[in-house]
Amino acid sequence: MTENAAVTAAIIVIGNEVLSGRTQDVNVQFLALGLGELGISLDEVRIIADVEDEIVSAVNLLRDKYDYVFTTGGIGPTHDDITTASVSKAFGREMIRNPEAEAILLANYKPEDVTAARMKMADTPDGDDVVLIHNPVSKAPGYQVENVFVMAGVPRIMQAMFDDLKPRLKGGATVSSRSLDAFIPEGLVAGPLAKVQEEFPDIEIGSYPFVRSGALGTCLVARSSDEAVLDEAADAIAAMIRILGGEPNDPTKPKK
Amino acid sequence: MTENAAVTAAIIVIGNEVLSGRTQDVNVQFLALGLGELGISLDEVRIIADVEDEIVSAVNLLRDKYDYVFTTGGIGPTHDDITTASVSKAFGREMIRNPEAEAILLANYKPEDVTAARMKMADTPDGDDVVLIHNPVSKAPGYQVENVFVMAGVPRIMQAMFDDLKPRLKGGATVSSRSLDAFIPEGLVAGPLAKVQEEFPDIEIGSYPFVRSGALGTCLVARSSDEAVLDEAADAIAAMIRILGGEPNDPTKPKK
Repeated sequence: MTENAAVTAAIIVIGNEVLSGRTQDVNVQFLALGLGELGISLDEVRIIADVEDEIVSAVNLLRDKYDYVFTTGGIGPTHDDITTASVSKAFGREMIRNPEAEAILLANYKPEDVTAARMKMADTPDGDDVVLIHNPVSKAPGYQVENVFVMAGVPRIMQAMFDDLKPRLKGGATVSSRSLDAFIPEGLVAGPLAKVQEEFPDIEIGSYPFVRSGALGTCLVARSSDEAVLDEAADAIAAMIRILGGEPNDPTKPKK
Repeated sequence: MTENAAVTAAIIVIGNEVLSGRTQDVNVQFLALGLGELGISLDEVRIIADVEDEIVSAVNLLRDKYDYVFTTGGIGPTHDDITTASVSKAFGREMIRNPEAEAILLANYKPEDVTAARMKMADTPDGDDVVLIHNPVSKAPGYQVENVFVMAGVPRIMQAMFDDLKPRLKGGATVSSRSLDAFIPEGLVAGPLAKVQEEFPDIEIGSYPFVRSGALGTCLVARSSDEAVLDEAADAIAAMIRILGGEPNDPTKPKK
């Protein structure tokens, strides 16, 4: 998507509740924005069922293909939480009771509230390289194994976990964007815009139609890690909008 | 996920704007619920970039694996709209100007507003079996080729297209659900719930923690196409909740 040496990531959303439509996923957008700020390009997302084979194959395929993989969901205490067993299998490792995670959980629950199901949340794949991801919300941690980060699915917990693991990520050049919109239908912008894109082959230019104040318009977004060339491209898009009779980012209602 | 003879589907979201975090996808949930009503199980979603190779390989892999594939996005008039070229390539077919789509577009625009970019929206893969998907919102159609349905990404348009294509889909047994919640933390529900799951191996039981009125609780969702067994499972879950000292679907605040 971006220049050479881009740092890339994928997300695996493990969740029957998203696939059934019961839950609207909001983790993808949060992570996309958070990774973008770090200069990491989110290149792919998969939403898969709570099925071991699907998790194993998605984890193995994506951890080879991208620099980082983030999973959300399936690390709770119930029978349908099979992410850790599946990730362990993907790495060909035993699933073990992680002593540091166990200590965190035992410190968190009253002795009479410690259940086998709860302690399952202290399990991780085996290996000295496994690093916990702290969870200030409800304590039960996620973990990192190699380039795979295993997080909770509950948005508030996932967000706190991402804050914890962020310092471990090495980003690339931060991608900036310039956004210009105009009350010109996309079909009339398209031809001239293709010429601007040809002029700036290294800039990613996206085009998104909108309806505002009852009038059709198009939002044009240029993205690149090269600020200088990005400014040039934004100027070229603005000039194009004016040639087409529009005004970039006009806050007023369109003239009819 | 469900019983034998389940009818399955996958969605491919084609969209840099979702991967960059600029746009919150809402099409997946809409389609998940709509497919569910028809007895079609959404088993996988991929969100991929506007990159030809990625689209070609996702389309070919998923159309083999699932009964139906739905794509959203990338069928507009601009240079970054490459879905149709990519889908044509996936099927090993030429991309042609579809006469029916061309007639729809020519009837829609004033002659002076007809541009090459707009007419690109009349392109489809070649073949007598290609059937248009009508778009009452902005006219430019989607299309069906074999078991792949190519739709717009703008939610309002995608929803109208789904209404149009729905009668072509053959669903399986409709999956019903029973939802029971209780102010009991997930970690205390988990053990007894696993036993209920063992008792009803053909029922998919999901467990989702929540915080309401400041108290922790768990929502338990049983799903199956067998209404009678589903009722039995729901009764077993309700009995379990009562044994744990809770009350299923208690509308009042939790007692402390």
